[in-house]
Amino acid sequence: MKACIIAVGSELLTPLRIDTNSLAITEQLNAVGYDVRLKMVAGDDIDELARVIRVGLDTADLVVCTGGLGPTADDLTREAVAGVLQVPLDIDETIVDRVRERFARRGLMMPEINRRQGMVPRGAVALDNPHGSAPGLWIEVGPRRIVLLPGPPREMGPMLEAVVRDRLAARASGGPAIFRRVLKIAGKSESEIDQAAAPIYTRWLDVATPVRTTILAASGQVELHLSVTTRTKQAADQLLAAAVSDLQAALGDVVYSTDGRTIEAIVGELLRARRMTIAVAESCSGGLLLSRLTDVPGSSDYVHGGVVCYSNRAKVEWADVPEELIVRHGAVSEPVARAMAHGMRARAGASAGIGVTGIAGPGGGTEDKPVGTVAIAVLADRQGELVEGVRTFRFPGGRELVKFQSATAAMNMLRLMLLRDT
Amino acid sequence: MKACIIAVGSELLTPLRIDTNSLAITEQLNAVGYDVRLKMVAGDDIDELARVIRVGLDTADLVVCTGGLGPTADDLTREAVAGVLQVPLDIDETIVDRVRERFARRGLMMPEINRRQGMVPRGAVALDNPHGSAPGLWIEVGPRRIVLLPGPPREMGPMLEAVVRDRLAARASGGPAIFRRVLKIAGKSESEIDQAAAPIYTRWLDVATPVRTTILAASGQVELHLSVTTRTKQAADQLLAAAVSDLQAALGDVVYSTDGRTIEAIVGELLRARRMTIAVAESCSGGLLLSRLTDVPGSSDYVHGGVVCYSNRAKVEWADVPEELIVRHGAVSEPVARAMAHGMRARAGASAGIGVTGIAGPGGGTEDKPVGTVAIAVLADRQGELVEGVRTFRFPGGRELVKFQSATAAMNMLRLMLLRDT
Repeated sequence: MKACIIAVGSELLTPLRIDTNSLAITEQLNAVGYDVRLKMVAGDDIDELARVIRVGLDTADLVVCTGGLGPTADDLTREAVAGVLQVPLDIDETIVDRVRERFARRGLMMPEINRRQGMVPRGAVALDNPHGSAPGLWIEVGPRRIVLLPGPPREMGPMLEAVVRDRLAARASGGPAIFRRVLKIAGKSESEIDQAAAPIYTRWLDVATPVRTTILAASGQVELHLSVTTRTKQAADQLLAAAVSDLQAALGDVVYSTDGRTIEAIVGELLRARRMTIAVAESCSGGLLLSRLTDVPGSSDYVHGGVVCYSNRAKVEWADVPEELIVRHGAVSEPVARAMAHGMRARAGASAGIGVTGIAGPGGGTEDKPVGTVAIAVLADRQGELVEGVRTFRFPGGRELVKFQSATAAMNMLRLMLLRDT
Repeated sequence: MKACIIAVGSELLTPLRIDTNSLAITEQLNAVGYDVRLKMVAGDDIDELARVIRVGLDTADLVVCTGGLGPTADDLTREAVAGVLQVPLDIDETIVDRVRERFARRGLMMPEINRRQGMVPRGAVALDNPHGSAPGLWIEVGPRRIVLLPGPPREMGPMLEAVVRDRLAARASGGPAIFRRVLKIAGKSESEIDQAAAPIYTRWLDVATPVRTTILAASGQVELHLSVTTRTKQAADQLLAAAVSDLQAALGDVVYSTDGRTIEAIVGELLRARRMTIAVAESCSGGLLLSRLTDVPGSSDYVHGGVVCYSNRAKVEWADVPEELIVRHGAVSEPVARAMAHGMRARAGASAGIGVTGIAGPGGGTEDKPVGTVAIAVLADRQGELVEGVRTFRFPGGRELVKFQSATAAMNMLRLMLLRDT
């Protein structure tokens, strides 16, 4: 079944605020079999609100609106719905009484304006709001349903859960639901991944219960989002596992995560499983590699630490890079990256080391070594023997993106080295 | 004039992703007089896409779509627009050549699939994409306009600026437009700021051309967003400058930015103006402070570098913290933070030093020093005399938020120290 989510409020049409309620709503609706096909944001204007509600009813079996249920004159969702359905708005005195009691419990008189919150399009059922004065509304329109919920997430959340549990799940019960898996990939471009994955995901579209794949690329990482619609979670898990395993077979070890974990978490687990520690010397990534490694809870168990050595002097003094290497090859070079990794690992007495040196830009590029040129060296102790990998990358994008891709590439090199290690 | 923004991509209809492009688009459209009245998010389905484009054209004078311009079969925005306008899709070989050159510059062959990015609904004008392969498109439909932009913000941003400047600004000239200013504040809570600012911003609502203020708090930083609607930028600038100056007078030096600059940029300028350099020793912030400092282009001029010293041994060996200090006061203590700042500054021969040590969590907290306890020391050379500041914070939130607030607080301490320095 199809769902449409409408967020109501002029503040959501400014550069300052964004609708985030729809994420939680989508998650809950997906889990009981509703497919969210359209999201809309409309301001506090009765005609424009009515228009989007009409579009929602034309598109979907279920329309969920959040916001516009407050007591003020610009809270117009009730009026707009009544207008679309061409039913009168009645005042439900039980709702008004409940609002009045809510004020009374805090020792306050209910302002007269709050009577508006008792307005109900004829035929609608009030939904209890344990955390605020605005009740929600449940409206049946032939085979379609409209749910009106207040905008504040603290009020919306529990009401959503209740309406999903008590009214939507039953309706959808036994019906199909959407289940998802995400494959995360590093070290390949979106088009390379698509070329390799397309034969697989195209085939998975052509089976009895198709698995849909969306390819997403951001900040030099690629994700494949798989989704399947089945009647049970078990059936979904089986199909998704099979599709994931086909895709992994086609893509190889560039896939680093099939369960949502970040590359820093994956690398952390590989290090932890091997009882290894790591030290890092980074130049162009400016601390981001260490910061991402330490974003993982418990990373102090395996991150010894490291240095950010922007200046040549810092490279020499803090990571024991021989000065003549910098003179001979330049600070951005594979020999210097290697020396940084070796120097830092030795200083820390760690089992793995990483050196990152490059040109993050916007300045500092040359014809030979343009902005985005980054040399990365990774080394790890394999049962007493030191294994080493060195690569030079040319990353696209601005300063922050070069930093981010440098850190990702370094972690990915280490990941592959540790994987091959077993 | 009315605008509608459409974000395209099935991933934006999952619980995992949200459209944020529309915030930047709204800001730019507002500045040239477009009022955003409707936002929609549609998936990669040609019929549903066509439907929302039709709704957009029914609602607004301008429809801006982002996303769905990539090379893959589920990038359908071009097709959907052509369908709505009932025009054929031509292949523009100049676009294809440009995409091919882009690949060639990186030593790659263009995959055949990228020819799709040369598809143009007849009558559309291609918009140059300096940061990616997908060109944008500009389409005139009688009095209405459609702008198609790619989804990745890095590509979308510059293209949006160009199309607003070159095509939309002229069109909208003369009408009232919305102008904004943002005050950024560190070191105070949202309610403290609101208490101090409310008398000022309430007064500014009561003038002939009111200036509206919204208070927003996130990640331990507070922002005041001011907006005013006027016919000229000059009139807006005058009003906004006056309101900003009133607010600054009330709030004092907790306001670090009135022009959108980040605290890392502000601190960088203060250091640069004083020809100072900085070295950092950080523990719980795990490299994030250095990473944020080095996010600023040109920061290699004043960031000497630093160490991430998670382990006690690293604190002793890399930042010259006397071991007995750690034994006596614990690693998370003001004496250790001071020693880290002093040790690092001396090692680097820098004019300023920062030491950050704390408990980012989720583990490691004690009753005495719960998760979020962070000691920060800042020192700077004031004409030969060393000035020092040390504070202990107790930050709310999870690991990443504690890291972020630690880095912000350290930069804010340095900022205030340097400001008082003159």
